[in-house]
Amino acid sequence: MILKLREYGIADPEEIYQYKKCVHPDRPEPLDLHLGMFLPTLLNQATPEQMDRFFMPAWNLEIIGTYAQTEMGHGTHLRGLETTATYDPATQEFVMNSPTVSSIKWWPGGLGKTSNHAIVLAQLYSLGNCHGLHAFIVPIRDMNTHIPLPGIVVGDIGPKFGFHEVDNGYLKLENVRIPRENMLMKYSKVEPDGTYLKPPSAKLTYGTMVFIRSMIVGESAQALAKSCTIAIRYSAVRHQSEIRPGEPEPQILDYQAQQYKLFPLLATAYAFKFVGQYMKDTYHRITEDINQGDFSEMPELHALSAGLKAFTTWETNSAIEVCRMSCGGHGYSRSSALPDIYVDFTPTCTYEGENTVMMLQTARYLVKSYRQAKAGQQLNGIVSYLNEAQSRGVQPQPVAARPTVVDINDLTRLVEVYKLRAAILVELAAKSIQQELQRRKSNEDAWNNSAIDLVRASDAHCHYVVVKLFTDKLREIDDTAIHSVLSTLALLYALYGITKNSGDFLQAGLLSVPQVMQIAVRIKELLSLLRRNAVALVDAFDIHDKRLNSVLGRYDGNVYEKMFEWARRSPLNATEVHESFHKYLKPLRSKL
Amino acid sequence: MILKLREYGIADPEEIYQYKKCVHPDRPEPLDLHLGMFLPTLLNQATPEQMDRFFMPAWNLEIIGTYAQTEMGHGTHLRGLETTATYDPATQEFVMNSPTVSSIKWWPGGLGKTSNHAIVLAQLYSLGNCHGLHAFIVPIRDMNTHIPLPGIVVGDIGPKFGFHEVDNGYLKLENVRIPRENMLMKYSKVEPDGTYLKPPSAKLTYGTMVFIRSMIVGESAQALAKSCTIAIRYSAVRHQSEIRPGEPEPQILDYQAQQYKLFPLLATAYAFKFVGQYMKDTYHRITEDINQGDFSEMPELHALSAGLKAFTTWETNSAIEVCRMSCGGHGYSRSSALPDIYVDFTPTCTYEGENTVMMLQTARYLVKSYRQAKAGQQLNGIVSYLNEAQSRGVQPQPVAARPTVVDINDLTRLVEVYKLRAAILVELAAKSIQQELQRRKSNEDAWNNSAIDLVRASDAHCHYVVVKLFTDKLREIDDTAIHSVLSTLALLYALYGITKNSGDFLQAGLLSVPQVMQIAVRIKELLSLLRRNAVALVDAFDIHDKRLNSVLGRYDGNVYEKMFEWARRSPLNATEVHESFHKYLKPLRSKL
Repeated sequence: MILKLREYGIADPEEIYQYKKCVHPDRPEPLDLHLGMFLPTLLNQATPEQMDRFFMPAWNLEIIGTYAQTEMGHGTHLRGLETTATYDPATQEFVMNSPTVSSIKWWPGGLGKTSNHAIVLAQLYSLGNCHGLHAFIVPIRDMNTHIPLPGIVVGDIGPKFGFHEVDNGYLKLENVRIPRENMLMKYSKVEPDGTYLKPPSAKLTYGTMVFIRSMIVGESAQALAKSCTIAIRYSAVRHQSEIRPGEPEPQILDYQAQQYKLFPLLATAYAFKFVGQYMKDTYHRITEDINQGDFSEMPELHALSAGLKAFTTWETNSAIEVCRMSCGGHGYSRSSALPDIYVDFTPTCTYEGENTVMMLQTARYLVKSYRQAKAGQQLNGIVSYLNEAQSRGVQPQPVAARPTVVDINDLTRLVEVYKLRAAILVELAAKSIQQELQRRKSNEDAWNNSAIDLVRASDAHCHYVVVKLFTDKLREIDDTAIHSVLSTLALLYALYGITKNSGDFLQAGLLSVPQVMQIAVRIKELLSLLRRNAVALVDAFDIHDKRLNSVLGRYDGNVYEKMFEWARRSPLNATEVHESFHKYLKPLRSKL
Repeated sequence: MILKLREYGIADPEEIYQYKKCVHPDRPEPLDLHLGMFLPTLLNQATPEQMDRFFMPAWNLEIIGTYAQTEMGHGTHLRGLETTATYDPATQEFVMNSPTVSSIKWWPGGLGKTSNHAIVLAQLYSLGNCHGLHAFIVPIRDMNTHIPLPGIVVGDIGPKFGFHEVDNGYLKLENVRIPRENMLMKYSKVEPDGTYLKPPSAKLTYGTMVFIRSMIVGESAQALAKSCTIAIRYSAVRHQSEIRPGEPEPQILDYQAQQYKLFPLLATAYAFKFVGQYMKDTYHRITEDINQGDFSEMPELHALSAGLKAFTTWETNSAIEVCRMSCGGHGYSRSSALPDIYVDFTPTCTYEGENTVMMLQTARYLVKSYRQAKAGQQLNGIVSYLNEAQSRGVQPQPVAARPTVVDINDLTRLVEVYKLRAAILVELAAKSIQQELQRRKSNEDAWNNSAIDLVRASDAHCHYVVVKLFTDKLREIDDTAIHSVLSTLALLYALYGITKNSGDFLQAGLLSVPQVMQIAVRIKELLSLLRRNAVALVDAFDIHDKRLNSVLGRYDGNVYEKMFEWARRSPLNATEVHESFHKYLKPLRSKL
């Protein structure tokens, strides 16, 4: 791949990312962080002088780099990182240290065995003052012999759930000296005498984080699309049990229970596709604004990307496993590809911001917005519903008290209902904080004692956004046949979400008991409507067999014969009689 | 282990199982099916003559056997199995065949490389008639050379999600002839002339299935107890973020969001422990009855073991992953043990009866009981509530219509509420079937078109049983301190279940909106009450470090240093410079 990149002259990090996505899709690799973090960080944060020193050698793989941020004892909460970089004006060097066991850098991909350099995030100390986290280029292995340099303790962190191909590593720094010029100094600086110069704006590093979280929303959609493709195609191939005695075993996709497992997930996959596109577009639009000095939408984008990252990865995470188990025993075989999809995907719930922390960040924005609305301020953007809610005096109340005239087939009305649910739950969370404060709790304790409500509010907000974006998307579709089937999917998504959270809607008086029961009946109708289009709807994701890499999910449906072929190639079948017979079983017999 | 079994004279299959549980706990092995299925099946279904021929050789590992039931195209629905055993009176042999690709035996543990015999389940044909499934002892490999015998195509089915140590295998039979005496003939028989003699009772094989499902309930409890032990101990060790600025990072177990993830699971682990004990006791009690010719409680036990197997494995399956993710990134390392617990546990949702099928079997019993109650029959046992419901005319209704005087702290009243919920959902499912029938649907289609309601009814029934058994258990506890903390856990279990399914309770008018809100507040209080006992409550599961095998879950809490030690022993760290540097990276450089 590296050689081909040269041949085609592909040098831009985003183009490298796209190229890798074409030739090695969905495959974690030891050089991922070199290409995806080390080079881009140089481009963003290195001075021209540093670019000269590091970029071309890195481009030619003389320097192989990784990005070392997370420590054994510190993840999402960056301020807690312990690694130190202390400036020594006498030698004009930084002295890098891992002062405790918990400060050992832990998890960076490619760090264990592959990299000879790392961009290390460390607390910068100069002239006795701590200036917070900064990035330093630290050589860790000899560029010729690849042997670790003095003061460097580096290695692989051991077997994991997945990512077997990646040498996630540890790095312990013991008085490692690097030249002053190895601090990435495009923005903040340490002068030779130790004087520290602040970066012009703290918001500059904000963007990458938001970008990656936005991308993860799209990755959720893709992982879910793959899983649905496999499970739905296989459910059309697999025959099991009997509906009518004596008749042939039906396709398992004809069972209502199977449809109820898979079709809501199919609808979710489509929903997340559209949300992913929206996040990407929004990111680019707001980045444009930021480049022109307009930071006004940044907080909203930050809150949205955090919440939707958590919402979509959590949903997808459980959905992949539902898909796997819906394939029965064969889902457990790696020939299904589903175990690999799961172990590769599940870290997204944790990395780039642990999901619960992300939900709480979004909640912080929602509560802040709610308070602004309450103070009479006019909100813009996606939280503007908090204004309306304010003026309508929305709050939980018995069902009977609120007139419920919702047509359960009208998506626009359902979006409205989701919106009101979000508004009510944001209000509930804000009130919980208020009550805690009235009990003389500190702000921080009040916040912590309302965490359940806050996460719930964020979740409802994200759910509303997803239903809304799916509904909005329908307006862009001209083809009536496509519009029709996507409307059915969107309706299923919205109604399924209501049944799964019916307590919220009943509690708030947004829907009546007869409506909730009507929705359950309607969902059954939608499942049977979708049955005939289900396989076509996953085919439309257009995931090539090679990329899907699943015997169960093959486009041609020739599952059983190919599964037999796949099994025969199992490593254990390399010899007809396995060595364990001669080594263990036979000798054991003679002792019995 | 085998040698020690001899030394101690352990021969009874149940004793073997217990011994293995002591020395190799929770470790799947290639000989598991030999010890756990092949030997016991001989004991149960072999004639004295067959015992002479097979048991001692199997006991001495001359014969290594497995149990081959599942086929590539057929799992839970046993009648669909395609393998044939056709009796040939001329030679007094059975001719065994795998007539299609989908009939290839698939998944049996130890079949791929370890076993030289298999008990094969096949459709018996004699004198032109099919007599259904029977068990046959089929030699598959030469006992000396271990080379597959003529007509036998056998091998490993390839890499899986877990169970890496077990050679799950395939077996294709091509006109394999075995002597008539290799059919297990303790109950049914084929005479030399081909005459088939039926078994005296079809219920005789019923017991094993029920036994295994009952045992799985206990395994759910154990897997969940292990996961909670790891996650809760680690949450007391891990410090993260800040509640109050400037103060040290608190233990993550002090975060309400973390408590809300873990404490309901801790309560569930205790609940499942008690349910597991109950199932074991009930199994033994009813087996006694059966041995004395009383089969009256068998259907209830069958329905209960099916439903609770599904209910507890599904709950535990997602709970293990919640525990893993609650440990942040380190949960993803195999040093946490959580990935291994998950991949070893998750097949229980599929094997011994796929969970959705299990739920539908329980539902069949519930609907049948409901109809009996409606016809005025007096029901006994755990479904007797369907009588009461019948006489009270319980059905879904608006909240306001039903007087709600439930004290949310009174477990007895909460059991009642769960019971009414189950009754209402069983009635809903029965009515859905009725409505389908009125629309001139066949019985089978009516059943399939009500599958969602049926699964939901079973789930509510099982949930009721679990809440009830937990509450019943409290009465047996004399120690007031233990009674107090277990009551708190039981209350948390019951209230958490209500908030997660609040729609059901509101919809049925069993609880009012203010009560549901009050429950949310009460849950927060219970979490903070349980905080100080949480670590003691997992310590009480008394799982030895050796068995837990988790760096994160160590009893002494010395996580970080031990994690560093564990990592340093990673296979990739065997050499300081990995061969990939010399083989790939260095040569590549020279080409750039």
